[in-house]
Amino acid sequence: MKKINRVAVIGGTHGNELTGIYLVNKFERSPNLIARSNFKTIAILANPKACKIGKRYIDIDLNRCFLRQDLENYNLSTYEALLAKEIYQMFGSSNTDNPDLIIDLHNTTANMGITFILDSQHPFNLGLTTHLTSVAPNIKVLVSGKHNQDSSVLRSISPLGLTLEVGPVAQGILDASLFQQTEEIIGTILDYVEVYNQGKIPPAENPLTIYQKIQTIDYPRNELGEIQAMIHPRLQFRDYQPLNPGEPMFLTFDGDEILYEGRSTVYPVFINEAAYYEKGIAMYLTQKQMVGY
Amino acid sequence: MKKINRVAVIGGTHGNELTGIYLVNKFERSPNLIARSNFKTIAILANPKACKIGKRYIDIDLNRCFLRQDLENYNLSTYEALLAKEIYQMFGSSNTDNPDLIIDLHNTTANMGITFILDSQHPFNLGLTTHLTSVAPNIKVLVSGKHNQDSSVLRSISPLGLTLEVGPVAQGILDASLFQQTEEIIGTILDYVEVYNQGKIPPAENPLTIYQKIQTIDYPRNELGEIQAMIHPRLQFRDYQPLNPGEPMFLTFDGDEILYEGRSTVYPVFINEAAYYEKGIAMYLTQKQMVGY
Repeated sequence: MKKINRVAVIGGTHGNELTGIYLVNKFERSPNLIARSNFKTIAILANPKACKIGKRYIDIDLNRCFLRQDLENYNLSTYEALLAKEIYQMFGSSNTDNPDLIIDLHNTTANMGITFILDSQHPFNLGLTTHLTSVAPNIKVLVSGKHNQDSSVLRSISPLGLTLEVGPVAQGILDASLFQQTEEIIGTILDYVEVYNQGKIPPAENPLTIYQKIQTIDYPRNELGEIQAMIHPRLQFRDYQPLNPGEPMFLTFDGDEILYEGRSTVYPVFINEAAYYEKGIAMYLTQKQMVGY
Repeated sequence: MKKINRVAVIGGTHGNELTGIYLVNKFERSPNLIARSNFKTIAILANPKACKIGKRYIDIDLNRCFLRQDLENYNLSTYEALLAKEIYQMFGSSNTDNPDLIIDLHNTTANMGITFILDSQHPFNLGLTTHLTSVAPNIKVLVSGKHNQDSSVLRSISPLGLTLEVGPVAQGILDASLFQQTEEIIGTILDYVEVYNQGKIPPAENPLTIYQKIQTIDYPRNELGEIQAMIHPRLQFRDYQPLNPGEPMFLTFDGDEILYEGRSTVYPVFINEAAYYEKGIAMYLTQKQMVGY
């Protein structure tokens, strides 16, 4: 077992997701809150300029700038491409034997509650999230990538990278209850790492429920790319609930229903996320699975 | 009684408030939906560039550009200042004997449901909103300005100007249920105007409940202007509910409560509206009143 030497608590990867920004500000004022005995914790804002103006990004989405080929491409010079290289230097490139635990704090307008997003099913992350879901059973675990697949998101620069996605909350506002819940979970993670470093984590007894991303679904659009339908009211805010074949997904502006035509039950998440309209994503479809490890 | 010759249904005064934008698009495709027998209805997007990029505004907030002194100031040349002059030419300057009914469609992140905002207590508007609240008792009426007071908001260019404020919904997303409710209310308004023009509106029997704006409250801030506290979880989403002296308003990042220290019960609205952080507004305080007319 390798010890964890550093934990990075990152806020403001998107400048209009305020929970992480204000938590990092708090941790900078009171570093004792995130200090533990046997590792170092660093709290930083990933995109300071975007935080200052309260927008998701300046030039391009920072959380899509971490493909290895882009990090190594010195012709890319947008503000966020340069930031990504800096962040990769800090937490990604060295210490492949002792990778840093990265907790990247995000908000969503979808009703996803407290969700951990993993790119890989690293045993440490599965152990950690199993522990967290045993403490707080409402926490969900979404596996977005595949093991060893290159990824463009910040968390992917470390095999121990996690996104903590919290919602629903509108962009640009602080929700006090979600702020407090997020702070508490960060504390629980740091406590877990401290005990882990002492070699005292007992084997998990229960399997972990994960939601494995299988595809994204776009809004119905016309040939000009204009949206032709909305999330159906019966699907809105029903993240992590089963969607069965034949059930409604979208509602056109004239009131016609568009049904889910897949063959098996899926569990949509990121339903009606504001930031994903420009990405052509109305929701992710996931499969619910149990994993042991 | 003066007949109403034109009704303007305006969407996209803010480019990230999608209900109005997609409704105006729908009415442009199907003008029969807003056509009535004895007046003309016009549906337009107020800020097309902001709608295209999905931001509230390009240079400055269009819905603060309608002070008379600004409309007459030819040195003002921001995109929105010019737009405001165009809109004023269309719906504000002429026909003072037969003003246009303006319905300006907005969304809010606050839990305000369906709210009509009036600047003045014009008898027509009071009659209309009394009718609407008798049909749909959940509709609220907020009186924001004072009679004959100059105002910077779009609705103020006509004595019959109304804002239809719908929430809660995050900026940049479509909520199908709110879309359908808003469309239905616009239809009810147009039906009312048709009957009004026929001289067939019976006198209202019931008084109208209004919420009169008395002041705005900012977030607690430090000397740098940085926010020091969040809306208290017990106040979040409680728009139009009574707030009594001694009840909590804010929660600091360290968990300390800040109480409402006024002397009388008030009814906060626009609680935690995303667009108002930059304006120094955490909420409006209102008084609940009954009006006859």
